[in-house]
Amino acid sequence: MEAGGEQLSLAAVRDQLIREEDSIVFALIERAKRPRNAPAYSSASGGRGQSLAEFFVREAEALYAKAGHYQKPEDVPFFPQDLLPPLFPTKDLPKVLHPSASSVCVNDAIWKMYFDELLPLFTADGDDGNYSETVALDFACLQALSRRIHCGKYVAEVKFKDAPQDYSPPIHAKDSNALMNLLTFKAVEEKVKRRVEKKARIFGQNVILEDSVDNQDVEFKVDPNVLSKLYDLWVMPLTKDVEVEYLLHRLD
Amino acid sequence: MEAGGEQLSLAAVRDQLIREEDSIVFALIERAKRPRNAPAYSSASGGRGQSLAEFFVREAEALYAKAGHYQKPEDVPFFPQDLLPPLFPTKDLPKVLHPSASSVCVNDAIWKMYFDELLPLFTADGDDGNYSETVALDFACLQALSRRIHCGKYVAEVKFKDAPQDYSPPIHAKDSNALMNLLTFKAVEEKVKRRVEKKARIFGQNVILEDSVDNQDVEFKVDPNVLSKLYDLWVMPLTKDVEVEYLLHRLD
Repeated sequence: MEAGGEQLSLAAVRDQLIREEDSIVFALIERAKRPRNAPAYSSASGGRGQSLAEFFVREAEALYAKAGHYQKPEDVPFFPQDLLPPLFPTKDLPKVLHPSASSVCVNDAIWKMYFDELLPLFTADGDDGNYSETVALDFACLQALSRRIHCGKYVAEVKFKDAPQDYSPPIHAKDSNALMNLLTFKAVEEKVKRRVEKKARIFGQNVILEDSVDNQDVEFKVDPNVLSKLYDLWVMPLTKDVEVEYLLHRLD
Repeated sequence: MEAGGEQLSLAAVRDQLIREEDSIVFALIERAKRPRNAPAYSSASGGRGQSLAEFFVREAEALYAKAGHYQKPEDVPFFPQDLLPPLFPTKDLPKVLHPSASSVCVNDAIWKMYFDELLPLFTADGDDGNYSETVALDFACLQALSRRIHCGKYVAEVKFKDAPQDYSPPIHAKDSNALMNLLTFKAVEEKVKRRVEKKARIFGQNVILEDSVDNQDVEFKVDPNVLSKLYDLWVMPLTKDVEVEYLLHRLD
């Protein structure tokens, strides 16, 4: 990532997080093209007891790994077992994080949140039979969410470097609550929520050539409130979980 | 596709084409996150004489096929050889097109256009080492473009059904030029170009919370003119090639 360049700065991390918001909004809008399509998530139909969604993510991650993915701290597979090494040359990226970064992963929580909580909030009831397209779009959502949340490793590193005197005592005391308090800025979080809501309004509108006189009745492809809620309940808390987990081992 | 439902109508086809525009703009904006990354397209590095891009698309299409993709007339693989049948149950979709639809494919032209012409127009020079991410984003662009262009099969069917008396003589005469003339509506094409340009402006802006007083200096993630050019030079002509090809066999 850019933020993972040799000059890890708060500005670079912030820019990446803001750009990831666009990717998340785009991915959700694309997934919302299709209805729920429940058969894609049932392990009863085919595939040795796994659902099509699980099969697809596993196989897609195996392909991504062969192509050289999962070298960066924010790219974390959901199914890390049995991934093969890259078949193509990869470029060495500067290491800017503490080595413990590689073990920090909240993908199990992201998986559960996405399928159990988020999906019903922004997809219509129904089954249009487009299962393969549906799970490919799910994979894009999962990847975007996971990448954004695991960028918390960079956030934590920048914040630690900026004020080691504040972070070191709770790290030594293994005091997760104190770390969480140090990492929480309510005003910033409110701003992020408003921004992703605005992005859902802008990116999810039906663009027509004529300037509409009455913009009151605009329909959005994904309810902007869902984006705000997603960030409030899950993206920001899980990012902070990543930050705390990283910091707890920062002085190992 | 929705337009491929039992009531194939011009309105449904038109709605799908407009929705595909959003997908194409999103995909290009996402690819533009990364610079050119030329090593991803070189067959010199690894992978049995194929580039990482070709390897990735081949393997991704193999996975999509196993997941049940490529059942619909607008979903056409770039590498149809050796694709396996679906491992999961698929839903039968109503057949609304003439059987010859399945042999209509302009993916070779799309592939060449994308890598030789389009990519240099909307990606920055440079190499940031993110090759696997880059080719995955390329695959999303290729898929979106191919789907949009092969929707021409539905366009042609709707237009034929609407005026068989106009289309039958040139079909019997195998007169591609006459068909192309029947299918060309300059005013509509101008409108489409202006709409995709507008979409690139709206979806590719950097959204900030504060309403900007001066909107003159806005930077876009993909130059809106590139979208207009893409549609003008390639998407609409290739869609019409699909339409002509389909119609030439419509009365077989």
